[in-house]
Amino acid sequence: MSRFAYVNGRFVRYGSATVHIEDRGYQFADGVYEVIALAGGKFVDLDLHLQRLDRSLSELRIERPMSDRALTFVLDNLAKRNGIRNGSVYLQITRGVAPRDFVFPRDAVPQVVAVARRAKPIAQTAIEDGVKAITIPDIRWARCDIKSVALLPAALGKQAAREAGAYEAWQYDRDGFITEGTSSNAWIVTPDGDLVTRPATNAILNGITRLVVIELAKAAGLRFVERPFSIKEAHAAREAFVTSTTSFVMPITQIDETPIGNGKPGSFTRELREKYMAHMAEIAGAAAGTWKWA
Amino acid sequence: MSRFAYVNGRFVRYGSATVHIEDRGYQFADGVYEVIALAGGKFVDLDLHLQRLDRSLSELRIERPMSDRALTFVLDNLAKRNGIRNGSVYLQITRGVAPRDFVFPRDAVPQVVAVARRAKPIAQTAIEDGVKAITIPDIRWARCDIKSVALLPAALGKQAAREAGAYEAWQYDRDGFITEGTSSNAWIVTPDGDLVTRPATNAILNGITRLVVIELAKAAGLRFVERPFSIKEAHAAREAFVTSTTSFVMPITQIDETPIGNGKPGSFTRELREKYMAHMAEIAGAAAGTWKWA
Repeated sequence: MSRFAYVNGRFVRYGSATVHIEDRGYQFADGVYEVIALAGGKFVDLDLHLQRLDRSLSELRIERPMSDRALTFVLDNLAKRNGIRNGSVYLQITRGVAPRDFVFPRDAVPQVVAVARRAKPIAQTAIEDGVKAITIPDIRWARCDIKSVALLPAALGKQAAREAGAYEAWQYDRDGFITEGTSSNAWIVTPDGDLVTRPATNAILNGITRLVVIELAKAAGLRFVERPFSIKEAHAAREAFVTSTTSFVMPITQIDETPIGNGKPGSFTRELREKYMAHMAEIAGAAAGTWKWA
Repeated sequence: MSRFAYVNGRFVRYGSATVHIEDRGYQFADGVYEVIALAGGKFVDLDLHLQRLDRSLSELRIERPMSDRALTFVLDNLAKRNGIRNGSVYLQITRGVAPRDFVFPRDAVPQVVAVARRAKPIAQTAIEDGVKAITIPDIRWARCDIKSVALLPAALGKQAAREAGAYEAWQYDRDGFITEGTSSNAWIVTPDGDLVTRPATNAILNGITRLVVIELAKAAGLRFVERPFSIKEAHAAREAFVTSTTSFVMPITQIDETPIGNGKPGSFTRELREKYMAHMAEIAGAAAGTWKWA
């Protein structure tokens, strides 16, 4: 764990990093967050994360507490104080502290907390053999486009995945179409060779890794189609994978009890993972082959 | 505000009542709560609240941190230390503190916090003239039966109500049927004289006041029907009201731009409010006419 955390303008010992019990983040899940990867001491796609943070705050009408510049300074300082070059920072902003009332408080000051974490190694077997996903009903609220801390359904879903021996749970809507993983976006490659992921409506969080991988796929000349796909289509896919800030591009080779394709990560997945790792290596200022996440 | 709060085994000054920033209540809304009214220094229907708390914890598989007896002692002590005889206590239990991960932590210790609050007077005009409700789409998750702190959509809904000059927002499902208010249950009396409220499925929180009012209605010989009702039916209702722990029975005399009945609280509403206030007075150990909430 990190030795220092950031709480409202101060760097404090991790163990004594606290917020008030009437912080609306605690009582109402009235806050938003971002997780930003660090590669070689550099933030990965920080600008896109800060843009999304801005959008989340503005959708909830939480006042922006600091400029991008100040936030960047804080996060960078936090990473450095914790001696973290590869890893991630977690940033949370809530509406503020106020006597409990559903209505927005008039004078609350947004609370800003952050923790940094060292990169956890990703098992080589996961990358080489792929991992399993299960499918579960999407029971979340209707505004999954907002990166809020109302993550209880996602936590329950991820726990269900783990108990089923799976890496992730792909959630499906009332019509049987996959929305996304509990903390990742879901992708398939169809038997015809279309790379498919769901459009970024209110039903999913528009992942930063998702956005970057879309660009990488287009640049590589892959046939990319943004459309919903069904559970049935997922089971019959040639390839499947998830994208997220800390999983990057992770091959899914089994969905529920169905092996995907030949049961091994496919060529699109491997190509996009390599390209994404090269993207990170470039940010880290290292040659693609020499840089290592953890 | 209360001068003392309770945090994990200790009574602390309200201002220094804090939890760790990696409390899962803060990062994942991974916790539950109860609000229990106090009348004349006695808890109102505490046993029903504790039963519901138990159910919420067990649905989320959060370990019960204390016995009913110990919890009751804490809450009672908190009220007394704050000199509160009429008012409420807020109790929150989260899964615990752990480095951020969607999966349930292995060894986390449930966190218990509580604050007490003095009764706020309810405007006499609200009771005599009724208040307004608006209708809004229900955008919440699919497990509203669990009294979790994932209350962001409810906070947004209540804020929308306030900005529309309304007391409450009645949420409607995809089929146009009212589920409930953002922090209350919704009731109507049909033109035929049926008292109607929605059955307690996953779509609503089974309010304790709701349960008590059902019993009071039955005892009074009112024709009670538990079934969903539509927005259209609500607009055409003879009476409407909400029930909650701190609003008791509150007449709704306007829904959106439509006056309900003759625009004044109806006879069912008045009767049920009186009976509920008598129920509270009885708990307070006072004669119905002499006891006052605030």
